Amino acid sequence: MSDSRPERKTVTACVLIIGNEILSGRTKDANLPFLAEQLNACGVRLMEARVIPDVPETIVETVNAVRARFDYVFTTGGIGPTHDDITSECVAAAFGLPLIRNPEAVRRLEQHYPPGGLNEARLRMANTPEGATLIDNPISIAPGFQIGNVFVLAGVPSIMRAMFDSIRHRLSGGLPMLSRTVTSMLAEGTMAADLSTIQDRFPDVEIGSYPFFRMGRSGTAIVLRGTDAGRLGEATDEVTAMMVRLGDTPVEAEA
Amino acid sequence: MSDSRPERKTVTACVLIIGNEILSGRTKDANLPFLAEQLNACGVRLMEARVIPDVPETIVETVNAVRARFDYVFTTGGIGPTHDDITSECVAAAFGLPLIRNPEAVRRLEQHYPPGGLNEARLRMANTPEGATLIDNPISIAPGFQIGNVFVLAGVPSIMRAMFDSIRHRLSGGLPMLSRTVTSMLAEGTMAADLSTIQDRFPDVEIGSYPFFRMGRSGTAIVLRGTDAGRLGEATDEVTAMMVRLGDTPVEAEA
Repeated sequence: MSDSRPERKTVTACVLIIGNEILSGRTKDANLPFLAEQLNACGVRLMEARVIPDVPETIVETVNAVRARFDYVFTTGGIGPTHDDITSECVAAAFGLPLIRNPEAVRRLEQHYPPGGLNEARLRMANTPEGATLIDNPISIAPGFQIGNVFVLAGVPSIMRAMFDSIRHRLSGGLPMLSRTVTSMLAEGTMAADLSTIQDRFPDVEIGSYPFFRMGRSGTAIVLRGTDAGRLGEATDEVTAMMVRLGDTPVEAEA
Repeated sequence: MSDSRPERKTVTACVLIIGNEILSGRTKDANLPFLAEQLNACGVRLMEARVIPDVPETIVETVNAVRARFDYVFTTGGIGPTHDDITSECVAAAFGLPLIRNPEAVRRLEQHYPPGGLNEARLRMANTPEGATLIDNPISIAPGFQIGNVFVLAGVPSIMRAMFDSIRHRLSGGLPMLSRTVTSMLAEGTMAADLSTIQDRFPDVEIGSYPFFRMGRSGTAIVLRGTDAGRLGEATDEVTAMMVRLGDTPVEAEA
């Protein structure tokens, strides 16, 4: 990170996880942790995530609320061949665009399925809003798409990840967020007052305190995040010194 | 489930997961799957979940948006002793209520900590909106609280679960959602047209189709959900018969 780099604005994102199966507890979402990590690594700050059901009005309204508010929106789920796959038509409706049968998507599906396999249900997977850019799906071929600042990805984690890999270069991030973690066996209540003072002196570093209980021991992980490595280092040094002053031997872990 | 039970309205809920650590990818949320399952078992339908950062305006605005829209709101996270724990004050602000130091909460903390341990930072954990009802915390004592239709729970999963167990009886659910799952090695695209026809005939049963790829095999799980066991059974039978017609030997799994 060079100090001569021009200041860039914060680039923000929202993830929409679309699917009744997450809200019913049947399926544990595995996509949010992946996207959170990957976006932050690209310098894009994930500011919100919503899990919403397969209800057309909810999807349309939510897509419109969040695409106006964040630089990027990533949806997962609802782009398969069955009746409960309604994401593409809802995103088209949100943009006020016609849903078309994308010729390039049809071509890819035709190449992929054996003769007679490409039925009408599967052809629905070639539907996109008019003007959308396809997102490659190297695993099961049926593509995702980008329209405006909204990226429509699959819900199956392996496919979602492959799709994200193929669009990563389209994202223009801000400064990458750097992070350091210091772990202590001190209780967070013991450090709270000092931590608050350090946070006040470093408004440009986000300091989070996370208690843990594991293997019969309890303690606190202090996570420091910021875009300036120098400031981040100074704040981390102060946190470490504070822990030593309070009688502990803190451990720094790469976050 | 007795047919003579009077029809009850759908009782809805929203979960707010408050914390930068989930959005940065540092921590994987473990609370949503638990709450989704438990709420559905109580007859409360989880309709939405949002993950939001530790930003006061965002918390206040989101709490107000969702408490007006859903019967119950459950928040997790942000009620510890450190500077980044701001949920209680934000919920008070959302309700336009003063944040007070709850005397019963203070009493519990005083009993719990050894002399000298209850510092000002830890006393912050006794702050609640005026008029809130405490939620017991058998693990680390500092309570959660209920104000109106909003339940404020801890973020640490073991504590959140214990808190939820102590409020379960306060929730009045609608009819419990029943669920059945039929698994087939057929691709979802093969069944899509027939499934859609069955869904049209059973508007009171929610039919979801979830492809899976595991241990080198692929297939589809069809999940049927509804409040009427009889109708659910009929729809499940139709799905099973359809799979047999298409040449498969489906397996029913308890969902």
